[in-house]
Amino acid sequence: MSNSLLILPGDGIGPEVMAEVRKVIDWFGARRGIAFDVSEDLVGGCAYDAHGTPLTDAAMEKAQSVDAVLLGAVGGPKYDKLDFSVKPERGLLRLRKEMDLFSNLRPAVCFDALADFSSLKKEVIGGLDIMIVRELTSGVYFGEPRGVFKEGNERVGINTQRYTEGEIARVARSAFELARARNNKVCSMEKANVMESGILWRDVVQEIHDAEYPDVELSHMYADAGGMQLVRWPKQFDVIVTDNLFGDMLSDVAAMLTGSLGMLPSASLGAPMANGRPKALYEPVHGSAPDIMGTGKANPIACILSFGMALRYSFGKGEEADLLERAIDKVLADGVRTADLMQAGDKTPATTAEMGDAIVAAL
Amino acid sequence: MSNSLLILPGDGIGPEVMAEVRKVIDWFGARRGIAFDVSEDLVGGCAYDAHGTPLTDAAMEKAQSVDAVLLGAVGGPKYDKLDFSVKPERGLLRLRKEMDLFSNLRPAVCFDALADFSSLKKEVIGGLDIMIVRELTSGVYFGEPRGVFKEGNERVGINTQRYTEGEIARVARSAFELARARNNKVCSMEKANVMESGILWRDVVQEIHDAEYPDVELSHMYADAGGMQLVRWPKQFDVIVTDNLFGDMLSDVAAMLTGSLGMLPSASLGAPMANGRPKALYEPVHGSAPDIMGTGKANPIACILSFGMALRYSFGKGEEADLLERAIDKVLADGVRTADLMQAGDKTPATTAEMGDAIVAAL
Ligand SMILES: CC(C)[C@H](C(=O)O)[C@@H](O)C(=O)O
Ligand SMILES: CC(C)[C@H](C(=O)O)[C@@H](O)C(=O)O
Repeated sequence: MSNSLLILPGDGIGPEVMAEVRKVIDWFGARRGIAFDVSEDLVGGCAYDAHGTPLTDAAMEKAQSVDAVLLGAVGGPKYDKLDFSVKPERGLLRLRKEMDLFSNLRPAVCFDALADFSSLKKEVIGGLDIMIVRELTSGVYFGEPRGVFKEGNERVGINTQRYTEGEIARVARSAFELARARNNKVCSMEKANVMESGILWRDVVQEIHDAEYPDVELSHMYADAGGMQLVRWPKQFDVIVTDNLFGDMLSDVAAMLTGSLGMLPSASLGAPMANGRPKALYEPVHGSAPDIMGTGKANPIACILSFGMALRYSFGKGEEADLLERAIDKVLADGVRTADLMQAGDKTPATTAEMGDAIVAAL
Repeated sequence: MSNSLLILPGDGIGPEVMAEVRKVIDWFGARRGIAFDVSEDLVGGCAYDAHGTPLTDAAMEKAQSVDAVLLGAVGGPKYDKLDFSVKPERGLLRLRKEMDLFSNLRPAVCFDALADFSSLKKEVIGGLDIMIVRELTSGVYFGEPRGVFKEGNERVGINTQRYTEGEIARVARSAFELARARNNKVCSMEKANVMESGILWRDVVQEIHDAEYPDVELSHMYADAGGMQLVRWPKQFDVIVTDNLFGDMLSDVAAMLTGSLGMLPSASLGAPMANGRPKALYEPVHGSAPDIMGTGKANPIACILSFGMALRYSFGKGEEADLLERAIDKVLADGVRTADLMQAGDKTPATTAEMGDAIVAAL
């Protein structure tokens, strides 16, 4: 089977970290004989600059036809004043929606070598390994009606949280499947005490559990309490499943707990395509970080690990993904550090490119 | 002026911590000659048990007519299966909505004596003192349409996020006012990158700032990044202003950061009444904690400090509020600790009642 990959470097540090991923892809081609059919396109602010839209129809079509999309990051202050409909984020949201990538996997893992970087105590986050499964194609991100309207003399801002039973069921299944391959525990989070959409969420997750995954341990938590518990004792969790908006917040909190923000990848998966592979988009959890753009301070590991997730989930190359992860472990153990991983007393940091080279060398 | 106070102990540990507040109220009456006209009623699950509704109309009327309402906590597993319309939480939400308590003040303060209880490093949270101002009467908590509906064969859960310009403006003003009395910095949080209601939120906060509070330093942050930054370096904030749902999550995360969850009070304020005092409800940030109900493990300090906020904001007794806070500091410095504040090696904890007595003695 051929391996087609669409690369969308995007804005800010996106192109810088993606250049390092290219080195890794080339290595797998040259040394492991895994040929990738790589194409590249624009998304976000740079697409708007070139074409007046954050994602062209042509790029959208390409994304639909490849085995995997790898995205850097979108957005930046330069685009803050743009109309809502052409903001950089709309490009990313269009990809998620039209590819129907309903299951967003966001691991929050604390790397041993980096436990000191967390603002949390080492005993609280050392060895942490949880997986947040966020619903990604529905909820308040996409519900209608939406907009800013005039009512009499006043402006009114409206968004709609909307979930169907089927949308909840499919992401719940994906969380239960993941849990079976991990520690068999799922915690579902919503605000069923104040939102009816949360009541439906809780009911459907429970029904899918009882009918199809009775072997998995399931609990429910209000999302505010969930945020608290993530801070208090995150190791109580294995898999967390939650909606689009709560997932946005909770996964960011969880990522920051680990101290490894520049290290965390994510996968957004949809239904299987004709060739059996799922529709898939991979991207680092970190954003476009315009403040450090062009300084060589960006850490390419999150994006390289996102490619690692693509190896595992899209290309059936679990062994190669393991190899890549081990190479990164080795580089970190050897003390190679980008600027975000420096501690007082450390010598000069490795640049983005030096980190990429070190990882290729370790491979 | 008379001082009328309605006490609603509620469910779980609510009545236990409220019993200790009563001692403090009595002390101010006997020793300081500040007479309170105290009445008591039911809210939450206990009101449902007695009357089939989480808040009777009579109790609602009483709440409307007093200077301040002091609430313990509502909810518990016993009521999980109740219909949405009579859940314990509906009683609290009815109070907030009908009293029009639009500005919810949630301080996140780290008490020196307790800095070790945080899961965060001491240097990250030592001396922390931020104030979260949460909009409390609108947004997705109250927007229509809402409910679980049948669409064809499928259930659909719907809630509506809805903010008017006026609703945003008034809570923004309350945040700017507070900032002027603190460190003059406000950070407003929303998801303007994906929600139109967030765009309106950002615009209105900026407009009120520019027109009425140009002297206050204002910044804007996406709510997910805000959650991250709260974990990374919370001391960067002074006042945070945000909507009902984001405020629910962010204030819980902020409260947990401090390690002082059993210590944090809150105030929910509305417009001034005929006597010049604002409509007001005070309650601890912690919940009903059914797991420790009846064990003497509950910490009454959050509820006592909530009464302290009432002294300050409703009864114009700032000096007495200071006195009460100093008494609590002293008790903590003396090493009196309820179960939630114990560390390995500590002797037996003080009970809820012993903590209350110690605070009265310190007064
Ligand atoms: C960039 C933005 C649209 C996006 C989101 O809100 O989903 C980001 O915060 C994320 O979590 O991937
Ligand atoms: C009890 C519940 C309705 C409430 C809320 O969601 O507002 C609580 O979490 C709070 O923060 O006061």
